[in-house]
Amino acid sequence: MGLHIGVDVGGTKVLAAEVDETGAVRRTARRSTPGRRVEVGLVEEALTEAVQEVADGRPVAGVGLAAAGFVDATGERVMFAPHLPWAGEPVRTRLEERWGVPVVLDNDANCAALAELRFGAARDAGDVVVVTLGTGIGGAVVLGGHLHRGRNGMAGEFGHTQVVPDGAPCECGRRGCWEQYCSGNALVRYVRAAAADESRGRDGQPPASLPGGLPADPAALTGPVVTAAARSGDPRALAAFAAVGDWLGVGVANLVAALDPELVVVGGGVSAAGDLLLAPARTALRRALVGAGHREVPPLVPARFGPEAGVVGAADLSRAEVRLD
Amino acid sequence: MGLHIGVDVGGTKVLAAEVDETGAVRRTARRSTPGRRVEVGLVEEALTEAVQEVADGRPVAGVGLAAAGFVDATGERVMFAPHLPWAGEPVRTRLEERWGVPVVLDNDANCAALAELRFGAARDAGDVVVVTLGTGIGGAVVLGGHLHRGRNGMAGEFGHTQVVPDGAPCECGRRGCWEQYCSGNALVRYVRAAAADESRGRDGQPPASLPGGLPADPAALTGPVVTAAARSGDPRALAAFAAVGDWLGVGVANLVAALDPELVVVGGGVSAAGDLLLAPARTALRRALVGAGHREVPPLVPARFGPEAGVVGAADLSRAEVRLD
Repeated sequence: MGLHIGVDVGGTKVLAAEVDETGAVRRTARRSTPGRRVEVGLVEEALTEAVQEVADGRPVAGVGLAAAGFVDATGERVMFAPHLPWAGEPVRTRLEERWGVPVVLDNDANCAALAELRFGAARDAGDVVVVTLGTGIGGAVVLGGHLHRGRNGMAGEFGHTQVVPDGAPCECGRRGCWEQYCSGNALVRYVRAAAADESRGRDGQPPASLPGGLPADPAALTGPVVTAAARSGDPRALAAFAAVGDWLGVGVANLVAALDPELVVVGGGVSAAGDLLLAPARTALRRALVGAGHREVPPLVPARFGPEAGVVGAADLSRAEVRLD
Repeated sequence: MGLHIGVDVGGTKVLAAEVDETGAVRRTARRSTPGRRVEVGLVEEALTEAVQEVADGRPVAGVGLAAAGFVDATGERVMFAPHLPWAGEPVRTRLEERWGVPVVLDNDANCAALAELRFGAARDAGDVVVVTLGTGIGGAVVLGGHLHRGRNGMAGEFGHTQVVPDGAPCECGRRGCWEQYCSGNALVRYVRAAAADESRGRDGQPPASLPGGLPADPAALTGPVVTAAARSGDPRALAAFAAVGDWLGVGVANLVAALDPELVVVGGGVSAAGDLLLAPARTALRRALVGAGHREVPPLVPARFGPEAGVVGAADLSRAEVRLD
């Protein structure tokens, strides 16, 4: 016996949590992520501190790690992570040896999908596509009730599928990736572009603030700010959600054409906007999906878990692993 | 004991074949497909004649049907077929009762994939994406060595995924579908467009024939004609294959990002061109695939079976079904 602790190692922060067998988060601890250009030891130190704070001297049965990066198919290594110093490191074994407890490792989108599959919106479902809209797009494919990880452990990397030839440049070095049109970053970009268009018509100077509560300072325009503005009826924010929702439906239609799942779950920070995002997405899905009149179109539903999805899924992965041994 | 007969019910013809347990075709019979706006009975009569001709009085153990249309997830009905009169008909049961032998039913792309999986390019493989380039695009998803059919039996409908926003109009009523850029039809369209551009520069009259053996008559420009022209070095035909191959690689990259398979098999009439098609496709796959430098990029290989893929897979489906009973 003992605790199962889930740890979400994200681009900016580490969240560790004690999660019980019903998926409830009992206690959490946070650390900043030291960044990409630091010694690997610094990240592992931050993880250790967060795990120790959650454990608080109690026995630990296992730790599950949800990493924002490419995890190999065997769950041993983080091959590459845009915001972390790991590059092919045998993270699982190293932390298992350091901590003296079983450690399991998967990528954060897979862990978030597991949380939905075991305790959330995809409970008891067989074939599910999970799309996670945060800064970019994360994704997971569930088939027959199990995560489909693929040959390299890279299945579900929907964010960098090309949806516009010669489209918007992406951080990945390619152009026209889906996440350039459908993500928290895209949402903010749409609002900025609309605000820039408006201010251009006046004296050429950007105003100190925009109507509807939107800050004029580009740095202050974040996903949650745009969501609040849309809720209070700001037309630019509403148009931005309509555009992101439309692209969500088009991209989901492509995945549904390929996989014909029974359910599509949409999670991540942007999904907190609910039907502001999902209503236009459902319309676009019906429009863009082949044979929509001859099939059951899968429901497009919001995820149950928010920012804690990763730790809930990672802890459950740990619990399942220890049960198997 | 007895024969297993595979029947491919295509848009223009019915091909029935005796196929042995090694996947070899022993005897075939052909009929024309009566068309879409005819009585259902006429199609079933054509199938019956073709099956009887192949059987030639010998006992039949089972018949597998490969239908060019949407087959429901239980393999009972053809829900919709662009070139056949079936629309929700319980085809399997009706033909089983008529013929007095076990009948199994699946769509043609799934049957073609089964042929590759059991006897061809995907033998012993686990996770495979099969793309069939004919007039349009057919496709199949193989996971863990089994066909993934999906909730409605419609998985693998890659041809109508949107790859160009507001792109070329498609027969399906939408725009920018992948098969508008990557198929036998697309190949012919690219050559026609290039030929039209050239003739515009002269006296405005299309010439009686084009250099490189390409016929000037648009109706005579078919996939095989373009393939032959490309083999003899015609620059328009080569450019058309380069364009179709590039779009093949881009679309496959999107599927690989989602599914991370170990193998991609390309079949259908257009794939007879071999490396004329596959070389540019492999280049585009490496360019367009996320994390190509951090993963094994799956091999993109030609299918083993040509026009007989459907009957080989359908007969094998029949053999497997009878074994299970």
